[in-house]
Amino acid sequence: MKGRRFNAQEASLLQEIMLQRRDVRGNRFHSDPLPDRAVQQILDAALSAPSVGFSQPWEFILVRDRLRRQAVHDSFTAENSKAADQFSGAKSLLYQRLKLEGIIESPLNIAVFYRPSGLPVLGQSSMDEVGRYSVVCAIQNMWLMARSLNIGMGWVSILDPGEVKRILEVPPDRDLVGYLCLGYVDEFYDEPELERLQWERRKSMQSVVHYDSFSQQDAE
Amino acid sequence: MKGRRFNAQEASLLQEIMLQRRDVRGNRFHSDPLPDRAVQQILDAALSAPSVGFSQPWEFILVRDRLRRQAVHDSFTAENSKAADQFSGAKSLLYQRLKLEGIIESPLNIAVFYRPSGLPVLGQSSMDEVGRYSVVCAIQNMWLMARSLNIGMGWVSILDPGEVKRILEVPPDRDLVGYLCLGYVDEFYDEPELERLQWERRKSMQSVVHYDSFSQQDAE
Repeated sequence: MKGRRFNAQEASLLQEIMLQRRDVRGNRFHSDPLPDRAVQQILDAALSAPSVGFSQPWEFILVRDRLRRQAVHDSFTAENSKAADQFSGAKSLLYQRLKLEGIIESPLNIAVFYRPSGLPVLGQSSMDEVGRYSVVCAIQNMWLMARSLNIGMGWVSILDPGEVKRILEVPPDRDLVGYLCLGYVDEFYDEPELERLQWERRKSMQSVVHYDSFSQQDAE
Repeated sequence: MKGRRFNAQEASLLQEIMLQRRDVRGNRFHSDPLPDRAVQQILDAALSAPSVGFSQPWEFILVRDRLRRQAVHDSFTAENSKAADQFSGAKSLLYQRLKLEGIIESPLNIAVFYRPSGLPVLGQSSMDEVGRYSVVCAIQNMWLMARSLNIGMGWVSILDPGEVKRILEVPPDRDLVGYLCLGYVDEFYDEPELERLQWERRKSMQSVVHYDSFSQQDAE
């Protein structure tokens, strides 16, 4: 085989980084600024992601400005109060106690956008959504790279995308894909917080894998 | 900090795996079957991806059956002939020479689906698409894990999702997110094939990064 050959120990290290990656919220972040070099490495990881037709349809806004972050936080608060109404009983009480973002506590927010090419893109003709999916691949690369640098990252999705675009003065043709909070942390939990709190149970491999066709017995 | 601390060498290794990851097509795949243990490691990587509200909304169909793969390939052929019409001149000639999938040449295809929960999902109330984005995070984990095991992966997006669901007997509520081809390869290219062929140019960091708000001078 031509190309760099990785060994089993190297594959295990990648597995460990994936297993140690967490979604980090504001109760774990330090406010210390991140070194420029670390931010650069995280952005480099984004730009090494795959993209449909090598279209690289991503754009990033690094948000450190306190007023803009406060405005994004206001959008979170408005959306989250609507979201809380979806749950009832014990889940509603637990939901209200959860800290779900770190917009202000983290030293750096990164808003990530999809920019449509405006021209035909190789590979995007049958499933237009793969343009946005390329941007998500970049975000997952950022998440893993951040974790390997011992930097926590959280993805805030309880936001009004139009409001975020207005706050950051983003042209209409761009779509918000993810709003990320990054910073050093006091702790990376051993397991996802929502698993620890029994909000959701971990699915078994068997329940989500099928062979050659969808098998009814595994459907639920 | 509580939690596993990675060192600079470990972060560099992750960066190298990301940089060496390629989208692999049929002209590079060997047909030798993949070891069960490697397939397991790739699926484990998928299941360690982040998901909105810990919803784990992913399902995987491992497709080895030749007839079903041939039927998926037929969908590719039909969609690709429509796609080719989008390009003209030199790009049209180059497009027709490109090998864009490895459905038959690779020993394993994995179709990856999004399964909506049917109940409210924490974090998915304002941006419904983050459910599908969770599945994309799982696919990017698979891609990196495969590369660290010296296994090539290609994402085929020139397909009719409804046709793929019909071929694999998938219930109507699931959405196809990605159709993946996996196998050992004779070579991992040093750079993306579409970059090497000058189909698209690599974007500079400067052209896609903004600070605090979208800056018009960086818009192009």
